[in-house]
Amino acid sequence: MDDYEIFEPGDCVLQSGATLPRVRLAYKTHGTLNADKSNAIVFPTHYGGRHQENEWLIGPGKALDPTAHFIIVPNMLGNGYSSSPSNTPPPYDRAAFPHVTIYDNVALQHRLVAEHFGITHLPLVLGFSMGAQQTYQWAVSYPGEVDRIIPICGSAKTSPHNWVFLEGVTAALRADAAWRDGWYDEQPVRGIRALARVWAGWGHSQAFYRELIHLKLGYASLEDFIVRAYEEDNLRFDANDLLAMAWTWQHADIGATPGFDGNFERALGSIKARALVMPCTTDLYFPPEDSAYEVQHIPGAELRPIHSIWGHTAGAGVDPADAAFIQQSVREWLAAPI
Amino acid sequence: MDDYEIFEPGDCVLQSGATLPRVRLAYKTHGTLNADKSNAIVFPTHYGGRHQENEWLIGPGKALDPTAHFIIVPNMLGNGYSSSPSNTPPPYDRAAFPHVTIYDNVALQHRLVAEHFGITHLPLVLGFSMGAQQTYQWAVSYPGEVDRIIPICGSAKTSPHNWVFLEGVTAALRADAAWRDGWYDEQPVRGIRALARVWAGWGHSQAFYRELIHLKLGYASLEDFIVRAYEEDNLRFDANDLLAMAWTWQHADIGATPGFDGNFERALGSIKARALVMPCTTDLYFPPEDSAYEVQHIPGAELRPIHSIWGHTAGAGVDPADAAFIQQSVREWLAAPI
Repeated sequence: MDDYEIFEPGDCVLQSGATLPRVRLAYKTHGTLNADKSNAIVFPTHYGGRHQENEWLIGPGKALDPTAHFIIVPNMLGNGYSSSPSNTPPPYDRAAFPHVTIYDNVALQHRLVAEHFGITHLPLVLGFSMGAQQTYQWAVSYPGEVDRIIPICGSAKTSPHNWVFLEGVTAALRADAAWRDGWYDEQPVRGIRALARVWAGWGHSQAFYRELIHLKLGYASLEDFIVRAYEEDNLRFDANDLLAMAWTWQHADIGATPGFDGNFERALGSIKARALVMPCTTDLYFPPEDSAYEVQHIPGAELRPIHSIWGHTAGAGVDPADAAFIQQSVREWLAAPI
Repeated sequence: MDDYEIFEPGDCVLQSGATLPRVRLAYKTHGTLNADKSNAIVFPTHYGGRHQENEWLIGPGKALDPTAHFIIVPNMLGNGYSSSPSNTPPPYDRAAFPHVTIYDNVALQHRLVAEHFGITHLPLVLGFSMGAQQTYQWAVSYPGEVDRIIPICGSAKTSPHNWVFLEGVTAALRADAAWRDGWYDEQPVRGIRALARVWAGWGHSQAFYRELIHLKLGYASLEDFIVRAYEEDNLRFDANDLLAMAWTWQHADIGATPGFDGNFERALGSIKARALVMPCTTDLYFPPEDSAYEVQHIPGAELRPIHSIWGHTAGAGVDPADAAFIQQSVREWLAAPI
């Protein structure tokens, strides 16, 4: 039995002008919405993640405590639970699935929050990686409704280098002729494995591998780590779904929010939420310099780097030390006055 | 007409035990060997490079001046000029081409130097990237014969992260079914393009792209840069040749030199040449931390980082500032007493 629910607002017009029919937003909630609807937290998912991957931060005694808060984890469009190439009927199925932006994701999440739950105010929005991108978007799209944000290992706008390396990741999948430009009947497994193999170089830092953390985690070798930590993880996903999420990522830019005319700095400056920005010092996707630039333009924001050799994955809470640091920071931020 | 010569020492037994038949070592020389054969410099090539790519550092008035020195540029095995999957006859053609190590490359270069030219002493060996790996190998294999080495943006042993990201690079090519496990008749162009697209994320740093250097260089867009700077470059090569060179790279380790029993630090400690080690501060392949570790173990070595946002490519001499810094350093090192 599925452990999540589906919000179905009908057809939705996307930022591109395309209509995504019969939209499904899969989400999971933890805890209970209080009477004045003032205790809700939104915690969107990341690339290659589903709501289950956010649960390390959620639970009694954890930073996001369902005994105090009502935590909503919306699944990103394209992740196979929410509307995705793999689950959308013709004529928008597979390769014809329209391009979806971070803005579209957040607009849809806002409908869930506002229309379905009747919530008008969020003490916190947070997320890791593409979840951080959605977090920034929440603060820009709905400035009066979000008190605090914590973007973890993510950016408000995908950097040129990030765009380039995602081209490499997706090109590896697309090199497999079995992908058939998206019109496959069977998964292009070789391409998905190649994509995963490219990820393996990016997801953890040079120092992570230098210190042989993969062996300390119990993997038998580098090859074993690539197969079990990266290939297995990506093989859970449909190929077009992986490509759809990558497109969303490559085009993330809060400056593209209506009203900002592409002005990224102005969009950052419009953020009213109290922002705790948590890059990892060794993240190869979202280097801390990019986060520092963003913090400079967000009124009152704090930059709090995660000092870790885990690279991007530091924000996923796998390493106990990184997880504890994030847990503690989220707790503190939630308790801070606005 | 070819602008290079071929040294043909016959069949060669490789480190693996396999015999590479009718070996070709393509090389180019600049300048004139003096009477006492004391002015020769060896400058091996890098991955995806041929002797032409080394010429930015060679010429009258440049750091490697043919009016004073006799500069030998040997082409790496697998690069399409020297013995490679693409030019070796059956039964060692294409996918059956044996695995070649950095050690094998240098052993062969040593035969060219010693047997063909009768040179027993080299004032300098230097190289960029895999050329740096060959440079380290020269110092370890022939400690009494090399006065100075300058490894630029390279390592004496391929790091675990470097191995992993090369897996991603090659997996992208291998994902193309047209590669046919190496037994293609026509180049797997889609796979080569995918490989190139993966390289694009690694070859230049995050900061290079952040500062939009690709636009300042005259490329119209990121896509234009990927196609013209990376795809075009890699499409010059045969697919199996690219994979052969990557295998050599992945297995680079001076500790595997006979006599060292895999002891990397002992191999570093055996280096007698005066070493100037030049990593780039933003190199994603060979981060300066790895070079610093190597320098600690090489008696009398100097670490001199190239402060540049060009990433790995800083060592290729494309950027005028980086090129000038390298030229100046090579000049100085060549003039230094031993």
